[in-house]
Amino acid sequence: MNTQQLLEHYGSPAYIYDLAEVRAAYAALRQALPAESTLYYSLKANPHPAIVGELNRLGCQAEVSSVGELHSALTAGCAPERCLYTGPGKTLHEISYAFEQGTTCFSIDSPLDLRKVATVAQRMNTPAQVLLRVNPSESVPGLGLTMTGAPSQFGADADWIRRAPQEFAGGEWAQIVGFHIYMGTNIPRIETLLQTFAVATRLAVELADVLDIELQVVDLGGGFGHPFASSGERPDLSGLREPLEGLLDDWLPGWRDGRPHVAFESGRYLVGSCGTLGCTVQDVKESQGRPFVVLDSGIHHLGGMAGLRRVPRIGAELICADEAAADTPLHNAHIVGPLCTPLDHLAQGVDLPGLTPGTVVVVRNVGAYGLTGSLLGFLSREAPVEIVCDGEEIKEASQILLTRCAR
Amino acid sequence: MNTQQLLEHYGSPAYIYDLAEVRAAYAALRQALPAESTLYYSLKANPHPAIVGELNRLGCQAEVSSVGELHSALTAGCAPERCLYTGPGKTLHEISYAFEQGTTCFSIDSPLDLRKVATVAQRMNTPAQVLLRVNPSESVPGLGLTMTGAPSQFGADADWIRRAPQEFAGGEWAQIVGFHIYMGTNIPRIETLLQTFAVATRLAVELADVLDIELQVVDLGGGFGHPFASSGERPDLSGLREPLEGLLDDWLPGWRDGRPHVAFESGRYLVGSCGTLGCTVQDVKESQGRPFVVLDSGIHHLGGMAGLRRVPRIGAELICADEAAADTPLHNAHIVGPLCTPLDHLAQGVDLPGLTPGTVVVVRNVGAYGLTGSLLGFLSREAPVEIVCDGEEIKEASQILLTRCAR
Repeated sequence: MNTQQLLEHYGSPAYIYDLAEVRAAYAALRQALPAESTLYYSLKANPHPAIVGELNRLGCQAEVSSVGELHSALTAGCAPERCLYTGPGKTLHEISYAFEQGTTCFSIDSPLDLRKVATVAQRMNTPAQVLLRVNPSESVPGLGLTMTGAPSQFGADADWIRRAPQEFAGGEWAQIVGFHIYMGTNIPRIETLLQTFAVATRLAVELADVLDIELQVVDLGGGFGHPFASSGERPDLSGLREPLEGLLDDWLPGWRDGRPHVAFESGRYLVGSCGTLGCTVQDVKESQGRPFVVLDSGIHHLGGMAGLRRVPRIGAELICADEAAADTPLHNAHIVGPLCTPLDHLAQGVDLPGLTPGTVVVVRNVGAYGLTGSLLGFLSREAPVEIVCDGEEIKEASQILLTRCAR
Repeated sequence: MNTQQLLEHYGSPAYIYDLAEVRAAYAALRQALPAESTLYYSLKANPHPAIVGELNRLGCQAEVSSVGELHSALTAGCAPERCLYTGPGKTLHEISYAFEQGTTCFSIDSPLDLRKVATVAQRMNTPAQVLLRVNPSESVPGLGLTMTGAPSQFGADADWIRRAPQEFAGGEWAQIVGFHIYMGTNIPRIETLLQTFAVATRLAVELADVLDIELQVVDLGGGFGHPFASSGERPDLSGLREPLEGLLDDWLPGWRDGRPHVAFESGRYLVGSCGTLGCTVQDVKESQGRPFVVLDSGIHHLGGMAGLRRVPRIGAELICADEAAADTPLHNAHIVGPLCTPLDHLAQGVDLPGLTPGTVVVVRNVGAYGLTGSLLGFLSREAPVEIVCDGEEIKEASQILLTRCAR
């Protein structure tokens, strides 16, 4: 079925995920990374069980940062001992939940976070393996969203660790086995990626010395870029592997034998391209000389990581699914959703094919940070159906429901 | 119970709503408006059933703009024939749902919207009462968020109606009984409110003449302002009523006898002050000289109408619930949530009392556009508990759950 037929069958709007595309993205990224490295899938990009399950079958481990994400990973078949639990401000409750499920590997963000993990580990009589997340003093240019070289809630400043290494002494219940250094997101260029990995690798070696630990694991993060909510291809990262291996050979000579073990993470690159939002034009009208296209989907379904106030307006590019309607193009148009707020804009001042009410349109590359990055509960509207395909085959369809239960 | 005790009992974080405060806000607004006018509660501000039910008992009618909001209103006891269904891009499905429930009053946003309502009305053999939403050519200064005098998805440009009145001929199944003119939101000043009402009133009179209809209803909207996510009092609107009545006497001489009937709408003013978010400090640390306070709540619980990209960063002001902790204040601090994204900031560069992990803090004035204006599904975290009180009495506690069901 094409998009139009899927929407006729399941209702409009709908997210359509293609597992074949997940496999293609995984293959592309895996091929760009050393064979000896671990690749984590960051569930925050899309926790849909079919997508998590497919990536687990392919060989990804799960990087999770909430009870809900860990639950999704385990439900999708991920082995608990291969999950990495990350994020600032962990509560004793969520650390305990992770231990109860068999997940004992944590990235910690502060000495207090470390003590919390140690407390639970001792209570559970199960030692934890801890990566210390580090905020390097420096950044590199070209990051989509810089996470280092600036004040950050993530990890501990490198200078703090140098100055007071005793605050980061793990002890027997929460041994620090390495470092987690994630410098930025959505990086499209190989050169930039290499610069961040170089900074992170050197810093891991230096800080292992500062803390006087054996460096067993280095998680270099990722930030592998991908277009969002607009057409565009997966960046070609095939040139990354060779210089990256050279860099690791230089700084971590035992890495090919797992001394240390090297890990990477990706959300956006692995699943961005697998998702398409199909929706239907409900009205087309003009206001003060500007065409307005009103869709049956808006920022409650595609929020562009709504609320993330530093992210620029999403460049939603509507691709007309009906070639015949393209005759009289709309110039300088606003694309809006159905929400009763003037802020429900998907795009402003764009040129579009001549859409008419009933036309099905698609927004591509919304497999990552699509539905869960949106205002799901705003104006009490239904979530769109999520349809999972594998190439031509329809695998399943489901829908998120918001219900209220007594407490 | 105080906030700390409520959080100990129900868990942290939690939204706490006080129905006594809803009644106080209703009384203040009702007193500022003519006794002869209708006051609609706009459910988009907060669809919690206890709040909708309280406002219904007080005498508010419901302004809804989705199937879900209409369902909430009816579940809370609102009479279907007194609900007003608004919003652009209505689908035939949602119009039919409204008719099936007994709701036949619609605000329509375009000739196509009008035809859709007429089509369903005829099929249901029940005439609809229609307000034509109008986008005035002019705006007035001082609006929190301007909705008119600029290209807009809402309603039809006044000039369009003047130029082509035949496109807005209602017919027997969808009779246009008046106009809906909502010029802006979050207006704190009486003078500004009066200016918008003056523009809207005059326009309604003019356009009734243009369309050659008897003016039965004029919905002047609202936009009554209120502080959000910071301390601050309800604006005193008691001086509004007298000049507003004079304005209506001048332009709509029969209004005191319901010819036409005058209506207003409010969400923010009615419920903004009733809600408080209580949360708990999970970590306090420093990065590059800046204190970071990590809460167990972030933009997934208080998004500041996240995704509404023109809204400035919310000015979340944390009020320390524990006086004793206030000894060593934090200067130029960042308040962040637990989400694994650098964009989970509630406030930046603020001065705070000396918070320590475990301290309970509250964010006031989040009864409107709080939880449902947030990224509920982001990073698969639980929704906070919502506790409804009435003064000192705890009425109920509940929680929104996100579940996935097959389709």
